Amino acid sequence: MSSARHFGLTVGHLPTGPHNALTDVAGVLVGHRTLSGDGLATGVTAILPHGGDLFRNKVRGAVDIVNGFGKSAGLMQVAELGLIETPILLTNTFSVAPCVEALIRRAVAANPAIGRETSTVNALVCECNDGTISDIQAMAVTQLHAFEALDAAASGPVEQGNVGAGTGMTSFGFKAGIGTASRQVEIAGAGFMLGALVLSNFGRSGDLVLPDGRRPHPRNPGEAEKGSIIVVLATDIALGDRQLQRVARRAGAGIARLGSFWGHGSGDLAIAFTTADPVAHAPQEPFQPVRRLDDNHIDKVFQAAAEATSEAVLNAMCAAKATVGRGGRRFPSLGDWLAALPESS
Amino acid sequence: MSSARHFGLTVGHLPTGPHNALTDVAGVLVGHRTLSGDGLATGVTAILPHGGDLFRNKVRGAVDIVNGFGKSAGLMQVAELGLIETPILLTNTFSVAPCVEALIRRAVAANPAIGRETSTVNALVCECNDGTISDIQAMAVTQLHAFEALDAAASGPVEQGNVGAGTGMTSFGFKAGIGTASRQVEIAGAGFMLGALVLSNFGRSGDLVLPDGRRPHPRNPGEAEKGSIIVVLATDIALGDRQLQRVARRAGAGIARLGSFWGHGSGDLAIAFTTADPVAHAPQEPFQPVRRLDDNHIDKVFQAAAEATSEAVLNAMCAAKATVGRGGRRFPSLGDWLAALPESS
Amino acid sequence: MSSARHFGLTVGHLPTGPHNALTDVAGVLVGHRTLSGDGLATGVTAILPHGGDLFRNKVRGAVDIVNGFGKSAGLMQVAELGLIETPILLTNTFSVAPCVEALIRRAVAANPAIGRETSTVNALVCECNDGTISDIQAMAVTQLHAFEALDAAASGPVEQGNVGAGTGMTSFGFKAGIGTASRQVEIAGAGFMLGALVLSNFGRSGDLVLPDGRRPHPRNPGEAEKGSIIVVLATDIALGDRQLQRVARRAGAGIARLGSFWGHGSGDLAIAFTTADPVAHAPQEPFQPVRRLDDNHIDKVFQAAAEATSEAVLNAMCAAKATVGRGGRRFPSLGDWLAALPESS
Amino acid sequence: MSSARHFGLTVGHLPTGPHNALTDVAGVLVGHRTLSGDGLATGVTAILPHGGDLFRNKVRGAVDIVNGFGKSAGLMQVAELGLIETPILLTNTFSVAPCVEALIRRAVAANPAIGRETSTVNALVCECNDGTISDIQAMAVTQLHAFEALDAAASGPVEQGNVGAGTGMTSFGFKAGIGTASRQVEIAGAGFMLGALVLSNFGRSGDLVLPDGRRPHPRNPGEAEKGSIIVVLATDIALGDRQLQRVARRAGAGIARLGSFWGHGSGDLAIAFTTADPVAHAPQEPFQPVRRLDDNHIDKVFQAAAEATSEAVLNAMCAAKATVGRGGRRFPSLGDWLAALPESS
Repeated sequence: MSSARHFGLTVGHLPTGPHNALTDVAGVLVGHRTLSGDGLATGVTAILPHGGDLFRNKVRGAVDIVNGFGKSAGLMQVAELGLIETPILLTNTFSVAPCVEALIRRAVAANPAIGRETSTVNALVCECNDGTISDIQAMAVTQLHAFEALDAAASGPVEQGNVGAGTGMTSFGFKAGIGTASRQVEIAGAGFMLGALVLSNFGRSGDLVLPDGRRPHPRNPGEAEKGSIIVVLATDIALGDRQLQRVARRAGAGIARLGSFWGHGSGDLAIAFTTADPVAHAPQEPFQPVRRLDDNHIDKVFQAAAEATSEAVLNAMCAAKATVGRGGRRFPSLGDWLAALPESS
Repeated sequence: MSSARHFGLTVGHLPTGPHNALTDVAGVLVGHRTLSGDGLATGVTAILPHGGDLFRNKVRGAVDIVNGFGKSAGLMQVAELGLIETPILLTNTFSVAPCVEALIRRAVAANPAIGRETSTVNALVCECNDGTISDIQAMAVTQLHAFEALDAAASGPVEQGNVGAGTGMTSFGFKAGIGTASRQVEIAGAGFMLGALVLSNFGRSGDLVLPDGRRPHPRNPGEAEKGSIIVVLATDIALGDRQLQRVARRAGAGIARLGSFWGHGSGDLAIAFTTADPVAHAPQEPFQPVRRLDDNHIDKVFQAAAEATSEAVLNAMCAAKATVGRGGRRFPSLGDWLAALPESS
Repeated sequence: MSSARHFGLTVGHLPTGPHNALTDVAGVLVGHRTLSGDGLATGVTAILPHGGDLFRNKVRGAVDIVNGFGKSAGLMQVAELGLIETPILLTNTFSVAPCVEALIRRAVAANPAIGRETSTVNALVCECNDGTISDIQAMAVTQLHAFEALDAAASGPVEQGNVGAGTGMTSFGFKAGIGTASRQVEIAGAGFMLGALVLSNFGRSGDLVLPDGRRPHPRNPGEAEKGSIIVVLATDIALGDRQLQRVARRAGAGIARLGSFWGHGSGDLAIAFTTADPVAHAPQEPFQPVRRLDDNHIDKVFQAAAEATSEAVLNAMCAAKATVGRGGRRFPSLGDWLAALPESS
Repeated sequence: MSSARHFGLTVGHLPTGPHNALTDVAGVLVGHRTLSGDGLATGVTAILPHGGDLFRNKVRGAVDIVNGFGKSAGLMQVAELGLIETPILLTNTFSVAPCVEALIRRAVAANPAIGRETSTVNALVCECNDGTISDIQAMAVTQLHAFEALDAAASGPVEQGNVGAGTGMTSFGFKAGIGTASRQVEIAGAGFMLGALVLSNFGRSGDLVLPDGRRPHPRNPGEAEKGSIIVVLATDIALGDRQLQRVARRAGAGIARLGSFWGHGSGDLAIAFTTADPVAHAPQEPFQPVRRLDDNHIDKVFQAAAEATSEAVLNAMCAAKATVGRGGRRFPSLGDWLAALPESS
């Protein structure tokens, strides 16, 4: 499988983790369910902050809305409480509903008190519009597909490009989809990890700028940006609520560095969570110590977030294979473009 | 049908509209679909800002999140763009998904270009948790019920209390549900209207304060507030984007005046829209004049929003009938309480 | 000195602290400098979260903007970082600048590295417009007055009414100014404290509703609300960043319960801070444990914040003495109104 | 005077205005007052949205906070009301106070009813910390300097680099300061203008990426980013309130494209205003038509905002002359670096 580094493209200065993937953050799992054929090129990608019961043992998270032209579910409550209590599902715009239902059913099955003796559950589902390639009106994704993505979640390398929710996604006029990357962060001599996974479907044709300054032009530049990008950032660094939110915000810098100006029609947003100091649904003690990073060290985390986001997008584009969309529109592979041209073009 | 005014309770100073209802704003339609029996007491309520095609002719709206413990859909895009392009559906927490799908299908049926030649559509669905009365885990609401609520939408008087999405809702330990109220607003000699419709499911037992200072105590005070309230405000006053957002925010004042402190577990939010100067999906002209109210007059609109919100909650509680919830919990009628007690109690 | 409780007015259910004042939170100090005569009725009030060096040992805080028609300084950085590194000064709208300079000079005197070897300092100054009573164009407050308010800061009872920054302030057509109140909060058997101090200058004549339902009418109702209210909340309860922000937001409920709809021209905002788990400017360790309250207990803190805010406003109005403003406008005393009327009026 | 284009550096695709400056927007004026010598290298830069009385005839504006580590004044009210009613002054962090006072005094002199018969006035002053070059503790800027900057405001070419508020500012380890750029925007066949002016004081040494991919390294990379950037965007395009806010947000993309990740210690923010459809302090009519751009055209405005912001920063750096700061630290000129190196380095 190709990645940006196979083509000599590096982003920033920090070293990557072993898989250069979100799953380099210990405990984080990723799974895909791809739907293709019959006019469909869509699917579901599941991100599990940990493999246990997230409702009982919530991770702390934050949301940053770069451009809120989107239909994601569950963000308001994360913004209010700073807690994530289900896996995160990624899918196409018209398939948020079955994914929400799948997350509710799984949570209720594991915790029958939900909605009865205790609160309800906040399903977290994000989306991009893959309608230029896939028949989005078919509303083909079902709860079953969501369950399959959840069940496929694993640690280790993450499949990228035309897979899961990324099957029908495009960026900057090229085929794109799922991409991931990671960064090692050293704080006071100790090693930490930050990973990014993107559902990349944003960027006008002709606007892409590679880290070395090259500008790949796939087709007619100037077409309106109607895609979106979802960025999920995970880390094992202990961060306070406000710090997590500030880390999430840096995803927008990672996107902008590739040449995007966060187009009107592009629902660009980021979710960041830490696996450090999770919060129990019903804690034993009234007060829980949550570690906070000294702000004098936080620039490293910001840098890691921006770098990993940019590289995850490039990885999505390098891994994705050329595809013919609806109406015969062609979305070439950035990997093919890079392989064909000398580096100094 | 009972209302607060039948019991001598008035809120504020401004005169009501002819029906004292959201539908006093010309063109606004409301419809209910109630599900009851077999452990269910739930449903769907539909609010149509106008009777035409909302995707082609969007109304301008805004959102204010008082306390974001909730699972509503579609709010992020309204906050970004200030446009509402589907009806607003209200339902229970676990039935957001079928209502989203119903709104998508209706929009696609009317506009086959959605998700293909043009953008997708942002379904707007808000919810409260009726699990203390209804079996929310049954996930009994279907797209069909949503269609029926939409088809039932009409102008004129609005049924209140145990109806539609409000069938299983409670407030301050009393039975509550759907309530509505309206206010006439005079600006520079011209008459305008502002209406509120609430899905009222908030408030701790013992915290309710009536406009005359009385404090009805239905059961054990101090129980955690785990409900929510959705406030929908409509007006025919021309307001700028920022002004609409500021009007939406005043719903929180209307709630607080009744004794609530916006409890942790209560998803309290408001949507405000104006029927003035709607925005076409594909306008003929690049610039559209949108009227803005001189801010020197806006306090009247704020006052109307706060008053109508408070009275709509009281109307929901006065119209609702006593109900026995799951596990035999009794939710008395505020109307019965008011009828039984002398006003000076 | 009069307070709401001297007139039989109580707000809510929770018990007060020993002084019913912000200073009931251990370590918090309050000082006033009053300017009067020669057409002036203004001043400065200083709130010190602790008596030590706040730049080196910052308290964690949060801001909530109810209605941002105001000219306060320093709020943006508190919102970003969640840290307060100077005392909080309250004054009139046109005297923010000298108060900012006074805080900078004091911080630099204590920490000569500021702006040279380390970062600058964020002065926190809030204001209301006392121009109906005082000659605000005189810009009479100087850095010296700010120093004097800081030097006067003490624990124990807090002078209320026409004093310090509150000297020329009015509310609901009555004379108002500085008010304070506190609430004891029991969490899992342990006792905590939450205090509020307000600079109360908001509320239209005729809109005031007392906790017992009475509506004092001082003069012509309907006059535009052009004042403001600054609410400062302090607690010793350990709260996370997001929790502090949510507590600050409940000040808005406390204001609304008195009959305000947060008028257009009223700059209503709240600052909340906790004395628990302060943050060093240059910590020894990269990670610091900060305790977070289990959200299942947070409603008590919300309730305390709303109750203390409401009562602090009433205390400001009960303590304030009748005053004649510029142009001969009379602002009566609510205390006089309450003393003259029987409780059942 | 050097600019990025003199060195062959272009940003993006859109054509510049005649002066490639903020003043290309008709009516906008810019003036500087520089202080240097005696350890000082600081000043004031004034931006006048129009040459008339801004209090009586306010322009509509919006604010976007990229990273709120800053001490600017007046932003909260712009965010609430969307109106700018004074010139915008830029200066160093510890000189906000005299600039606020200068704006208040000028407004009161022109409108004696301020703070008496009508509301007070919201002074808008933004700042960066020039303490690495200038003695910021001297607090040397006075009201008089602010008046002189205001009086110097003119249309036509804008002096850049070490001038006005930019005298002591640095970026990415190079000397920086004031920079400006503009873009022509064609909408439906009609020509419009968007300009940017920056006070550029942000960016870690070694992080700068030029539009052609080159990475100038002035000194030790990795130094913490403790600067800030203020971006002021002006346009003559008619935009709604929400649209203006979305345009302001795109300044962050322009910054990020240069290699910044919006560092912790960098107070990065943008103000955007339009000269179209200003708002009177006391309008004759209750409703005013304000034109709104069809969102289908807004990507051009976003692109112009991002491009002009990036180029304005580069212009600041290309125009600035090498400077020796406090303690003998040297800040070289990017212009010198570009002149010395072949383009393909």
